[in-house]
Amino acid sequence: MEFDVGSNDLSSIMKDPVSSQDRSLQLSSALKLKRLGIDTQKEFVVYMRSDCHICKSEGFGALNRIQARVNDITIIGTLNVTLTDLLQPGEASLSHCAWEKLKAEEGQKITFSHLPPIKSLSEVRAKMYGSKLSDDALMHIVIDIADGKYSNIHLAAFISACAGDNLDVREIIGLTKAMIATGTTITWGKDLVVDKHCIGGLPGNRTTPLVVSIAAAAGLTIPKTSSRAITSPAGTADTMETITQVELSIEKIKEVVNQEGGCIVWGGAVKLSPADDILIGVERALDIDSEGQMIASVLSKKAAAGSTHVIIDIPVGETAKVRSEQQAEKLKHYFQVVGMAIGLNVKVLVTDGNQPIGQGIGPALEAMDVIAVLRNEGPDLEDLKERALLISGALLELAGIATAGYHTAKQILNSGKAWKKFQAICNAQGGFGAPEYAPHSYDILAQRTGVVTAVDNRKLAKVAKLSGAPHDTLAGVRFYSRLGTKVEKGQTLFTVYAESTGSLNYALDYLKSESEILTIV
Amino acid sequence: MEFDVGSNDLSSIMKDPVSSQDRSLQLSSALKLKRLGIDTQKEFVVYMRSDCHICKSEGFGALNRIQARVNDITIIGTLNVTLTDLLQPGEASLSHCAWEKLKAEEGQKITFSHLPPIKSLSEVRAKMYGSKLSDDALMHIVIDIADGKYSNIHLAAFISACAGDNLDVREIIGLTKAMIATGTTITWGKDLVVDKHCIGGLPGNRTTPLVVSIAAAAGLTIPKTSSRAITSPAGTADTMETITQVELSIEKIKEVVNQEGGCIVWGGAVKLSPADDILIGVERALDIDSEGQMIASVLSKKAAAGSTHVIIDIPVGETAKVRSEQQAEKLKHYFQVVGMAIGLNVKVLVTDGNQPIGQGIGPALEAMDVIAVLRNEGPDLEDLKERALLISGALLELAGIATAGYHTAKQILNSGKAWKKFQAICNAQGGFGAPEYAPHSYDILAQRTGVVTAVDNRKLAKVAKLSGAPHDTLAGVRFYSRLGTKVEKGQTLFTVYAESTGSLNYALDYLKSESEILTIV
Repeated sequence: MEFDVGSNDLSSIMKDPVSSQDRSLQLSSALKLKRLGIDTQKEFVVYMRSDCHICKSEGFGALNRIQARVNDITIIGTLNVTLTDLLQPGEASLSHCAWEKLKAEEGQKITFSHLPPIKSLSEVRAKMYGSKLSDDALMHIVIDIADGKYSNIHLAAFISACAGDNLDVREIIGLTKAMIATGTTITWGKDLVVDKHCIGGLPGNRTTPLVVSIAAAAGLTIPKTSSRAITSPAGTADTMETITQVELSIEKIKEVVNQEGGCIVWGGAVKLSPADDILIGVERALDIDSEGQMIASVLSKKAAAGSTHVIIDIPVGETAKVRSEQQAEKLKHYFQVVGMAIGLNVKVLVTDGNQPIGQGIGPALEAMDVIAVLRNEGPDLEDLKERALLISGALLELAGIATAGYHTAKQILNSGKAWKKFQAICNAQGGFGAPEYAPHSYDILAQRTGVVTAVDNRKLAKVAKLSGAPHDTLAGVRFYSRLGTKVEKGQTLFTVYAESTGSLNYALDYLKSESEILTIV
Repeated sequence: MEFDVGSNDLSSIMKDPVSSQDRSLQLSSALKLKRLGIDTQKEFVVYMRSDCHICKSEGFGALNRIQARVNDITIIGTLNVTLTDLLQPGEASLSHCAWEKLKAEEGQKITFSHLPPIKSLSEVRAKMYGSKLSDDALMHIVIDIADGKYSNIHLAAFISACAGDNLDVREIIGLTKAMIATGTTITWGKDLVVDKHCIGGLPGNRTTPLVVSIAAAAGLTIPKTSSRAITSPAGTADTMETITQVELSIEKIKEVVNQEGGCIVWGGAVKLSPADDILIGVERALDIDSEGQMIASVLSKKAAAGSTHVIIDIPVGETAKVRSEQQAEKLKHYFQVVGMAIGLNVKVLVTDGNQPIGQGIGPALEAMDVIAVLRNEGPDLEDLKERALLISGALLELAGIATAGYHTAKQILNSGKAWKKFQAICNAQGGFGAPEYAPHSYDILAQRTGVVTAVDNRKLAKVAKLSGAPHDTLAGVRFYSRLGTKVEKGQTLFTVYAESTGSLNYALDYLKSESEILTIV
């Protein structure tokens, strides 16, 4: 201290003394919470009046990052200031996710403070400038992301700095380990826990419930967590939800798996990798599939879920996520090397991704396919069945319980054991009920006789989404016209299902405007 | 068209026909605007109820980018959905900047549509993957940014991809040209229009009003646009606003400059480079000073403002923006090469940036310094005066109207011509009035006798901000203890000024907690 501001002598020498009690009251002054209920997804946003005394005295302005504290929990949020009477003087609010995180209630006090520097951002800046990220640096970054300290702008910078092959294998391993370390880890007390994952992109590719049923029927432990649809007409969790309950606590998941050997639940509530959950939203907005982050994302969640042996399915096709064999082979290599480094036994299957799998596209329609295959019905579902057997077979072999895995898997499916196991798993999760068809439907007919030579997966998925899927669980498309199918003029190519005539029209209007979903020559 | 959905036969074959009139009504259905007045700075945000029929039918979700249309103007915004009755069914809202852009009024209709692909984002992704950006690519990116098509996430990705010396000189030139092309350009019909720019970071460094007055008094044309404080206690525009009006239309600016040869106005309203204005906010959040973007930002605005000859001042110091001679030399090279490419005559001065300039820190306190120097008062303001003469002299030489510029500038200042010119400019801008001292102040005294050996510019700026600057224009710090000053115990080191006792206490509390603003040995 080089100047005359001691801890005790301030009020005595001030020109306008204010008692220290008054001052501390003023400095700690809180605002009162009002719920606005604005959903900003994962980003914590704080709302304050622009003329609020805290904004003024702290020098807070729009887009500033500030600390907010409620119930002894602190978050870092981005400030949006309000210019109207949306908030009354003395009030503040939080975006939905921040409100939940702080367990806030209307009328509670909220206090604010300046942001302490986020040290790991200097590592992100160094990465932008071409440095390599050490394991420590990656750990600090991932911890800060998981704590919600990064704004979307910071997240985008981190993702960009890591995109374009900018992460080497050592960095991918470090990122994967950091993601595991910052999330929930499930332990099963077993030497052998299996799992499967598909690098998305194929409508109707609902093999998971089949693989889980076959593997569990074969005696394996397969605690499967699945996602809901993000940009597709249905995720596995959406599909399963038309049959049984999928939002289970970790305790309930353990109960189901211990009883039946497997489960098929929504992974969103489990928080296996909170940093990854946050990054994914921004990656989607950037439409970037950074290889390194994708591998870290998938493998960290598998390891955190307690898996030991994992099959990765990479469908390759022009309208799939992975578009060339070369790209698939590179991914395969990374998956295996990183898997080994974190103690996972990984086998990668590169499969055909040129057209939809099965007939249904949409939650209930895909669930019908799954049930039909399990019941050995539906000769038109050979593709879905074959793919499920291929993956199940590889899984049985990887786990070391079969030498001709495909045949063992086929026996289990044909015998009805997989169907029985599926029903048992559903019952353990909360009950089994087969879905019904939507009340409204419309057949799309061939205008000429010929052979189907091309199918645009993305446009087909869009029709299903416009008809209401996945929100309207019965909505979607049933597709009968696989590549190579010979069709007669007037024959039904596919059927659109919807829960309301409005939604049906919406999808049909899109069909009128789009001419190249199927090519018939 | 390979299937049976013609443009006319739809309703005739639908199972649940809806007349096409009803359908188009339903499809085009608009929402009614309600003003919430949320300030998100530059980012367009659209607020809709999560259960809104448009959200559902279009499949819009939080963080989606969507098109919104009001008054035949279309913007692209990020969707935030509301989960409460903040919006009533049928209502939607916009963030403040989007509301302004669409010239929206409460109760108007707003319509929404899906986002057409933003093609230039593929150029940004290519840059992430190591490609060079062509002039065309940079033009498309800058146009889309200026149109508000990029979300903060996209902007952060672009900035990150260009950071870390990732832009070569050709790209910096392309970026500069694109920024000029997308903004307002001012023409003066003169061969010689001068300007100056300082690469910030020094509290109290208010040379601009002095340089403009001297240059204009010397007969040069110097239409100076300045910024408001962003993170500092005062910008030149804030300082000038305590003396005269600074928010002038382009017409009024032209009038002032044609009459007096110079002006000192706020540049924010002029929109010389709208893309840059948008990028700067995100760069600040990332705390990134990408050299390429900084050069493009500065030079594009100078060119757009119609300048032909420009002095760039780069203060170098440990707590300044540029911290090493080496970094300054590199910047100097880039400024000259890029300047030449766009037809600007650029001279760069590398100056001492180790301590505050002048005595005042805060809008009114800095204005007092400026006036004192112009009136040849204040022997304690030699540093500010010398710096202004150095820059003015270089400018007179660059413009070719003096061979010993420093001496010419000194004559103009000492003769009172600069002071007369300054008052004339202020009167032309709307009137002249000298600011007064704040009602509350507190002297910080030396606790020992010795010599000042270090000054922390950043902490000193923070004291000024906590006392209320720049919002409270009279608030700030008057600093008497330059490096090397001999002080006696009990002598005043600096004085804190505030408009309220609350703000004064706020600054003093910070001083109590911070021990190393000045070092006296």
